[in-house]
This record gives sequence, C-alpha cells and structure tokens, in this order.
Amino acid sequence: MLIQEPVVWNGEEGKVKWLLQTLLPGEVVYKTSSSYEDIYHAIQVLDIRGAPLIGIGAAYGIAAHVLHSEGSIPQLYEEAKKSGNRLVTARPTAVNLSWAVNRMLVRAKSLLSNNVSTDEFKKGIVDEAISIDKENSEMTNKIGEYGSQLLSDGDVVLAHCNAGTLACGGIGTNLAPIRMAIKQGKRIKVVQTWTGPLFQGARLTMWELKHDGTDSVLIPDTSVAYALGNLGITKVIVGADRILMNGSVANKIGTFGIAIIAKHFKIPFYVAAPTSTIDRKSRSIPIEQRNPEEVTDLLGKLKIAPEGIRVANPAFDITSPKFVTGIITEKGIISPPYRKNISQILYQN
Amino acid sequence: MLIQEPVVWNGEEGKVKWLLQTLLPGEVVYKTSSSYEDIYHAIQVLDIRGAPLIGIGAAYGIAAHVLHSEGSIPQLYEEAKKSGNRLVTARPTAVNLSWAVNRMLVRAKSLLSNNVSTDEFKKGIVDEAISIDKENSEMTNKIGEYGSQLLSDGDVVLAHCNAGTLACGGIGTNLAPIRMAIKQGKRIKVVQTWTGPLFQGARLTMWELKHDGTDSVLIPDTSVAYALGNLGITKVIVGADRILMNGSVANKIGTFGIAIIAKHFKIPFYVAAPTSTIDRKSRSIPIEQRNPEEVTDLLGKLKIAPEGIRVANPAFDITSPKFVTGIITEKGIISPPYRKNISQILYQN
Repeated sequence: MLIQEPVVWNGEEGKVKWLLQTLLPGEVVYKTSSSYEDIYHAIQVLDIRGAPLIGIGAAYGIAAHVLHSEGSIPQLYEEAKKSGNRLVTARPTAVNLSWAVNRMLVRAKSLLSNNVSTDEFKKGIVDEAISIDKENSEMTNKIGEYGSQLLSDGDVVLAHCNAGTLACGGIGTNLAPIRMAIKQGKRIKVVQTWTGPLFQGARLTMWELKHDGTDSVLIPDTSVAYALGNLGITKVIVGADRILMNGSVANKIGTFGIAIIAKHFKIPFYVAAPTSTIDRKSRSIPIEQRNPEEVTDLLGKLKIAPEGIRVANPAFDITSPKFVTGIITEKGIISPPYRKNISQILYQN
Repeated sequence: MLIQEPVVWNGEEGKVKWLLQTLLPGEVVYKTSSSYEDIYHAIQVLDIRGAPLIGIGAAYGIAAHVLHSEGSIPQLYEEAKKSGNRLVTARPTAVNLSWAVNRMLVRAKSLLSNNVSTDEFKKGIVDEAISIDKENSEMTNKIGEYGSQLLSDGDVVLAHCNAGTLACGGIGTNLAPIRMAIKQGKRIKVVQTWTGPLFQGARLTMWELKHDGTDSVLIPDTSVAYALGNLGITKVIVGADRILMNGSVANKIGTFGIAIIAKHFKIPFYVAAPTSTIDRKSRSIPIEQRNPEEVTDLLGKLKIAPEGIRVANPAFDITSPKFVTGIITEKGIISPPYRKNISQILYQN
C-alpha cells in the first residue's frame, strides 16, 4: 500500500488537496482549497515541493479556480490566465512549473477557439490537469518497471535525499524501481542517508518507506563509506535534478561523494529520472549556493555553530559520467557511452 | 592567541577549573571546584571529554582532593586512593583515564614509602598532575612542529570532527600542525566538516577556529566531495582514536569516506595522533554502535525522522592504510610501509 499522493484532485468538490510537507514527519496534515492563492503560498513555503509536484499543484490550482469562476467563456479564459500568471511566479526557477502552466493555458486557448460551452470549457481544463498528473504517474511507473529489472531478490539499495512520491508524484523516481521490485515479490532493503543540511532523506523518504512498510535503515551522512563497506549494500539508486548529454548528473549535494565511494567498493551506481530531466543544450551546470543558516541553524530550530562563521552550502553536486553505471528513464535504461546512448533514446521517437 | 585550556589547575586556590563543553558554542562557562565528585560528574556528562582531557581532569581531581584533605600521610594516601578509585569509573572505556589515575596512585605510594612531610606529600601529588598535563601539551607541540613541516604557505586543509584543544589539550592533535604553521607565518585556511550525528566539527572545532581567528569555512558532511573538488583543498588532516600496527586508522565516523574521496582527487590524507594511540596488539577494531536517538533526534533537541524506524549509528570507521599518506606523531612523521615504519618509531628508543 503506497502513500497517498501529496497533491490530489478532489473531484466531488472540485478542489485541490495537498499534504503539508513542512510538517513531516511530526504531523500528517492535508489541506483542501480551490484558491490559487493558497496553492501559490503552498508552493512558496515548500508544502508542495519537488519539480514534478509543483507543476501538478499549479495545474490543479488553475483548474479549481476556473471551475469555481463564473462568466462567459472569454471571461473564464481570462481567469485561467490570471491564475496561471500568478502561479508561475511562485518559484521562478522550477522548469516544470512554467511547463505545466503553459500547457494549461494552451489548452484553455484551444477551448476558447472551439466555441465550447461553459461546462465543456471547465471540464476541458480539469481534464488537462488530470492528464498532466496521470502522465506523470505513468512516467514513474515506467521508471519502476525498467528499474526493477536491475534489482534481484535480496538486494540492499543505498538511497539519497527524497525522490519519492513526495517530490515526484506516482511512485517517485529513485524509489520507483524499489517499489516495483517489492511488488514483484523481491525482498529489497533500503539504506537511506540523512541528506543534510535539510535532512530530506530522514524527514521525507524515511516517512515514505515507513508508510510502505519497507525494510529500511537510516544513516547519518558520515556513515556512507561504513554502510557501503559493512551493510551489504548491492546497488545505489539516486534521483537527478539535471542530466547533461554527456551523462553528467546534477543531484542533491552528497551524491558525488556516494558515487566515488560506491566505485571504490565496486557497487553499481544508478540514476533514476525522467527524460525531461535531460538538458539538451547546456555543457555545464552552475552550482547554486543556498542560505548559510541552513548549515548553522538546523531546520531553523537548532543552532550548532558559533555566530559569524563562514559556510559553504552548495545545493547540489555534479557526478561525472564515469561513476554512473546506468540512467533509468521512462523510455528505458541508458548505459555508457552516454553521449551516444542519451541521444539515441531522446530522438528515437 | 590560542584558546584557554579546557581543564586548568588553579594554583592559588588549589582547585580545578574546567570549561562546560556541553554548553558550546552557545555559552562559554567555566566551573571551579576541589571536589572529585564534581569532576566525576563533569566527565560523565561530557563537560570534560576527549581521551587526553579526561586523564588530565582526573589527575587534577585527585590532586585537589588530597590538597584539601587533612590527616596523616597514610590518611592522605587513602584519600588519594578513594578519589582515584571513584574517578576511574566515570568512563570505564577511556584508556587514558585509568592510565592517569594509576600514575597518580603510583606517585602517591612512592611518596608514602619515602616518609615525606604532609606538605611534601601534597606538593608531590599536585606536581604529578601538573606533569601529566604539561607532558600532554608538549606532545601536542611536537605534533605541531612535525606536522607544520608538511604545510606550505597558502595550503587549505580539510579537517573532520574535533581533535583540537577541547579534546586533547595543548594545541590539539589534528589542529596542531595548522596552528604551528600559522604561528610560523604561513597562511593556512581550514575547511571543517559538521561531523554528524553529534556535530563536534561545527560545535567545537569551529568554536576553536573562530577563537584563533583562523580563516575557516564550515561544510555539511554531504559537501565533502564538492569541497575536495571545488574549494582548493590541498591537504586533509584528521585525528585518530586508535591506530593498528599495519597503519589502519580508527577515527570518528566519516573519516574513511573522506579518505576515499581525497584519494580520488589525489589530495594527501594525514592522520595526527600521539604514539600512545598506536595499539601494539590488536589486529582488528570492533566498531561501537551508539544510541539510535543521536541519528533521529539531533542533540536530543530536534526530531528529524519518523518514530520507530531502524538506524545504524557507528561511532567510528576504519581507514585502510593505503589511503593514509602519513601519520604525524610526537616522535616524527611515519610514512608507508606502516608495518615496518610504525615498529621502527615505537622501538627506536
């Protein structure tokens, strides 16, 4: 039994329901609303987080707003644009957010041009949001199907950060192969890192794994080499924020260190991510530095360092392709050489 | 200007003065007492911590108690034994504690046999504690002198955990080469890890480095590979809990991962520790597992994981000799091959 999706459409009320992720793991609280301002706020404060989830939240936000609006078709179209233009600014850097809002507005424009009825317009908008959600879930299932082929009964998987349902919807990305393999009857254990400084591994992934009833162990980030050497780990599977055409993987800080240590122990290192994560143009990835207080005041609640010190707080690191055994996508598993094989999978259809 | 020693002898009052390390870095509070029960408590709650420091604290505890006791020489000798037998149980696993207490009681017995006066007995006991403290400081200075020969102007050193003054007295062990090099006029920067789960790097070493005015940067444990690849680090220097004759190094959890990543980046990895850390007999080191709550409830104050999950919390890891560029001791720097060269330095005199 998997966890409930963190953003769901409540068809009866025509509202969006979402999990307040900032309260995890202490409290499991859902909120329901048809106000796009509420969704905007939820995205801003990270109650709705993870690139795919943000897009789904925004799409449902537009749908709920249009559904509860009144007026002519051109007026409803204006309401769709108003909510979309607002939501797209909630987190300006997330590509999926603008992609999803744009797709909703393209659909609204098409409905406007087709002289549909008010009910048909509203239904069309809601259906588009549901499609975005559903296609995303199908993508995670595909990653699970391909990835599960790599896992055998008895495997122990090291996982980093959170690329589960809470970030990606469906069955997640790096958790998808594990969940699918377990569904197939394979016994799989997970060793999960803290993933400081924000502890998304401890707070979010351990919550998902506990909910699933998966055999799992949490380790501090300092225990990675110990765990790879002593806890019987047979595979590493992580998610990705961005993948370059040469196979370089940007992912949550700590990933590159895990990859280097895994190679030392000759343990295969896999990346699970949709092909939409592949950046077809860039040749390098600038590394974002986040707020120093994340490092000195844990979760804004526990001060662990003296005042006035300097800090480095990179949000992610870049794992070079030679450490990556394979990339698990919804279109199949990509093996080295990456430059050739990534192109092939992207452009085959 | 280095920090004040965390355990000092107050000669005027004949009392022990110590820093309440558990309050760092938030508060800097010292306590003064002549009661060995107070010292016992301070060692138990980790206000006095680090193997060498515990020994020094216990020695001064015996000295203060004898100094403030009255009676004949045999009665004073009994008081020394009473306080020593109590203090030695404060942390039964710390070798330095029993070593220091034993040395104090051997001295007391020798004074008893020599028919000294009461004043001479008390002075002899106090002098012995001061000697233990002084010899320890000299050991750290020697490590600093040898280790500083490895450091050049402009070096950037990655450091892990706390093996500074707060743990080792004097100028510390892994911080000794850095401090000595800076004293010699070399410009040295330090990149310091958090060192979760107890954050001794953030809490204690950053406090020492800030006090020294050393150019330093704190990083989360996930940033080690990023830092070794991007922050211009030229050397790694860590401490050690135990070193085997073959050069295997047991040190705070996280050390082995740093060593593997440093080797990938071809950055020299040094261990700084006194020769008393070398275990002449054992062929392996059992790895102590600590309280799971250290991983789920940070410093007993911040809950970051769901209830009832499983945890691995090894206290240290073992770095294999092939990752160790050199071992900096008070007798000189030991290079590979370790089995031959460790024997040589131990038995050369």
